[in-house]
Amino acid sequence: MSMLSDIEIAQAAKMQPITEIAEKLGIDSDSLIPYGKYKAKINHQLIHSDRKDGRLILVTAISPTPAGEGKTTTSVGLADAMNSLGKKTMLCLREPSLGPVFGMKGGAAGGGYAQVVPMEDINLHFTGDIHAIGAANNLLAAMIDNSIQQGNPLNIDPRRVTWKRCLDINDRQLRFIVDGLGGKVNGTPREDGFDITVASEVMAVFCLATDLEDLKARLSRIVCAYSYDGKPVTAGDLGAAGAMTALLKDAIDPNLVQTLENNPAIIHGGPFANIAHGCNSVMATKLSLKLADYVVTEAGFGADLGAEKFLDIKCRMAGLSPDAVVLVATVRALKHHGGCPRAELGTPNADYVRKGVANLARHIDNLKDQFGLSVCVAVNAFPTDTEEEVDVIRKVCADKGVPCALSEVFAKGGAGGVELAKTVLSIMEERPLHFTYDLEQSLADKVKAVAQKIYRADDVRFAPAAQKALDEYTAMGYGNLPVCIAKTQYSFSDDASLLAAPEHFTMNVREVRLSAGAGFVVVICGNIMTMPGLPRHPAAMDIDCDAQGRITGLF
Amino acid sequence: MSMLSDIEIAQAAKMQPITEIAEKLGIDSDSLIPYGKYKAKINHQLIHSDRKDGRLILVTAISPTPAGEGKTTTSVGLADAMNSLGKKTMLCLREPSLGPVFGMKGGAAGGGYAQVVPMEDINLHFTGDIHAIGAANNLLAAMIDNSIQQGNPLNIDPRRVTWKRCLDINDRQLRFIVDGLGGKVNGTPREDGFDITVASEVMAVFCLATDLEDLKARLSRIVCAYSYDGKPVTAGDLGAAGAMTALLKDAIDPNLVQTLENNPAIIHGGPFANIAHGCNSVMATKLSLKLADYVVTEAGFGADLGAEKFLDIKCRMAGLSPDAVVLVATVRALKHHGGCPRAELGTPNADYVRKGVANLARHIDNLKDQFGLSVCVAVNAFPTDTEEEVDVIRKVCADKGVPCALSEVFAKGGAGGVELAKTVLSIMEERPLHFTYDLEQSLADKVKAVAQKIYRADDVRFAPAAQKALDEYTAMGYGNLPVCIAKTQYSFSDDASLLAAPEHFTMNVREVRLSAGAGFVVVICGNIMTMPGLPRHPAAMDIDCDAQGRITGLF
Repeated sequence: MSMLSDIEIAQAAKMQPITEIAEKLGIDSDSLIPYGKYKAKINHQLIHSDRKDGRLILVTAISPTPAGEGKTTTSVGLADAMNSLGKKTMLCLREPSLGPVFGMKGGAAGGGYAQVVPMEDINLHFTGDIHAIGAANNLLAAMIDNSIQQGNPLNIDPRRVTWKRCLDINDRQLRFIVDGLGGKVNGTPREDGFDITVASEVMAVFCLATDLEDLKARLSRIVCAYSYDGKPVTAGDLGAAGAMTALLKDAIDPNLVQTLENNPAIIHGGPFANIAHGCNSVMATKLSLKLADYVVTEAGFGADLGAEKFLDIKCRMAGLSPDAVVLVATVRALKHHGGCPRAELGTPNADYVRKGVANLARHIDNLKDQFGLSVCVAVNAFPTDTEEEVDVIRKVCADKGVPCALSEVFAKGGAGGVELAKTVLSIMEERPLHFTYDLEQSLADKVKAVAQKIYRADDVRFAPAAQKALDEYTAMGYGNLPVCIAKTQYSFSDDASLLAAPEHFTMNVREVRLSAGAGFVVVICGNIMTMPGLPRHPAAMDIDCDAQGRITGLF
Repeated sequence: MSMLSDIEIAQAAKMQPITEIAEKLGIDSDSLIPYGKYKAKINHQLIHSDRKDGRLILVTAISPTPAGEGKTTTSVGLADAMNSLGKKTMLCLREPSLGPVFGMKGGAAGGGYAQVVPMEDINLHFTGDIHAIGAANNLLAAMIDNSIQQGNPLNIDPRRVTWKRCLDINDRQLRFIVDGLGGKVNGTPREDGFDITVASEVMAVFCLATDLEDLKARLSRIVCAYSYDGKPVTAGDLGAAGAMTALLKDAIDPNLVQTLENNPAIIHGGPFANIAHGCNSVMATKLSLKLADYVVTEAGFGADLGAEKFLDIKCRMAGLSPDAVVLVATVRALKHHGGCPRAELGTPNADYVRKGVANLARHIDNLKDQFGLSVCVAVNAFPTDTEEEVDVIRKVCADKGVPCALSEVFAKGGAGGVELAKTVLSIMEERPLHFTYDLEQSLADKVKAVAQKIYRADDVRFAPAAQKALDEYTAMGYGNLPVCIAKTQYSFSDDASLLAAPEHFTMNVREVRLSAGAGFVVVICGNIMTMPGLPRHPAAMDIDCDAQGRITGLF
């Protein structure tokens, strides 16, 4: 059978005008800002509506393989299925970065028959939010170096500028640079580097802000350098926060698009899930809850990273709590966790699943017992899956007392997610969310709490520089911030090769960074890449655009 | 009298929905792509309409002072005045860059009561065109370095990568950098640098392309590096042109906004006027001519640079020719050319005007006699101007046989431009445009033709490296391209201190660069800055945005 590509399916979609999608949601035309016929922004002030909030469903996943386990696809299909059951449901997702679009093939707008459209627009510039975030980031960078150049009134130590410039592209050449060369009129030579835009703290700030005022206050608090006498220098000190806010004033309004089945989707914000918290914007989630009875949202990477941050950082800051959690698993990934060689992942072998299923079991335990949430498992179906393999998953779920449903949304759209939708509806329950740590604990204790309760590490070892930074941040008054742990997404541990459910390991914290504007302390275990590179054959080489503006080869 | 600031005037404007502006132009709703309520893109395919083209009016200026002589303001007011006289007139301008917005105060959307709105949007991200151009530029840059990294199949010499990255910001720190540091996995160390986005060849390509196909063909031809054996490497060789076109497919549609008086304005593209040709896009001009009976457009800097390139490059490539040229002069600038010290520019002194008016006279001669066009002079009025001073200008115009009109559009809007509008209408005449050179001439002869006929240099001296490059480009087959001269805008010569109408000087060509995609050879005289810096007190420090999204301090 010849399967259509994602872009072919997307381009064949019959989209409804975005004004019609908005009308069905009860959005007044004054609050809708169209960007073409099929995209719009919604005035974020609608989050202050009197309407009762809908119920929140979080989609997360087991520890993934590099291919991803289909969280976005499952989220899209689940929302379509719930709408098909007559439940007024909003999908709420992250915005894709241009980096992966031109790098490795792999969409960020779902896949198969569970996609959001117009997929080319969403995957390219969309409504310009990420460019606006990049501009704000780079304005601050230019103002830092300009302040140094123009007499350095803030006494900034050029060796301690922590703020990097950014571009929304995979460009390894910019990871480590020396800039300010060329003599006195061209700046001060110093070591520097670029991150990809979605790794900018401005993106994290943007996604955690509750309104424009809060956005500006957070931008103001960003610590971007230190003075020669060791004092933090903020964006506020540099007088940059107002202009940065001006650059973000349109971006802050959440974006409305639709699924292939013409159901509403809000796509807004997309911070990294390692050095940031990896969820769509707080404003998008809050707005979605005002506009629908059910909201399906997702968190980055596996549940140890994405869901933990969604719950301990985003939900805590924003006063949110999910009524249901969908844990996405695939037979292929569990085989991988069971030690199956990559070449055999498509060959039926229930033994590998049995060996790897401990990964799933631990994620269930964490979500259910640590966080106290109502959980179900979605098996994202692949054509190569066998009944025997899926039964291994079903058995573990039964043992853990959580329901399990097959999801065939990639191949069938919403119709393939009805079983899952019914399962999710059956477990919806308002439960008190248990955080992994209290904010009053010390930064080190907060890290230990996540490492021990969620990752199941025996202990955490802080490198001397990391310990020193924790002490400094505490002395600076940042001890009460939550912690945002950056580690490999492929293992519960900080070692990507420890699959399934590793035990008796020690977490090694290499480095600690302050994201004072976002409002968390980033704790780095291992090497975290904040500027990806392009592969040998970049996806960009296959992308084309004809005279009519039709794009091909996107993925 | 307390005058309102530009942004206060702009924010008090009663804008009409952009759909109404479009309706009046006869644009069908399928061809209009709204970006919010007051901005829209127009499908560029409308340039193929059967409608008879309108008539083209070029607004240019005498050699400017750093403050600028008000070309944009005059253009806006002229278009408003013509519309008030019942002439269906479209304004067609360049898009502003974020660099000046956050650097020196000074809008790029007109001023006083002659502005285009929404001015905050136009001056900030607008519809994202410049970000899209930046993304296309930087995708090519990343693909060049990635090709070197991944086995270097094109044998690119890292010392001869001519393509720079770009950002739409004034950031001197990025002028000269070394990137690719950090070891083998992080690229190849090499000298590099950033330009401001509007200086990218992609911007020039974008502005000269006639459709998406031509855009892709031009992008493909961009020479971005040389191999170790000296062969040019193009964006096409790297497989980048398709993806770059995909990034630009929405940007290519011209942007529709309105003036304070609710008349239509298309604002699209904005290349540098030194290393590029400094005019809005060909597509915007062609579309404007299809949508209105008269089109008012402008060219960058003074007429020696902007108008010359508009005529010799843009009009030649696009088959356009203006029926009237408005040469903007100010009393202040002519005093400056007459040697008046800066502190006395506001003090009445007709003698300085008499000494400086030779600058105006020469620009008139060039436009009238060299190019063969129908010319009038607009005196952009300042409150400090005296009748005696303006009379000096009137007399020179009378001597040269060109009409002269006072323009008070800054203070009075369209009503202040009625005299000018009537004057322009009285001189409209289809005349054969005489180019300064033929494309068949050698590159050096083309440079000499401009230098001698337009600048009035005695001779041109080519630095050895420049001569070598001209020879190389000729050998490579680029000898038939037009030349784009980059020199100071403050003088007819390449020496900014030679005011009024200098004679008996030699032009010094320091460097020559190839813009094979745009389709011209850039000839650089003196130091040309392609990445500006921020001033001691950047305008960004005064810009703010309140909780309702209202921007203040923009300028």
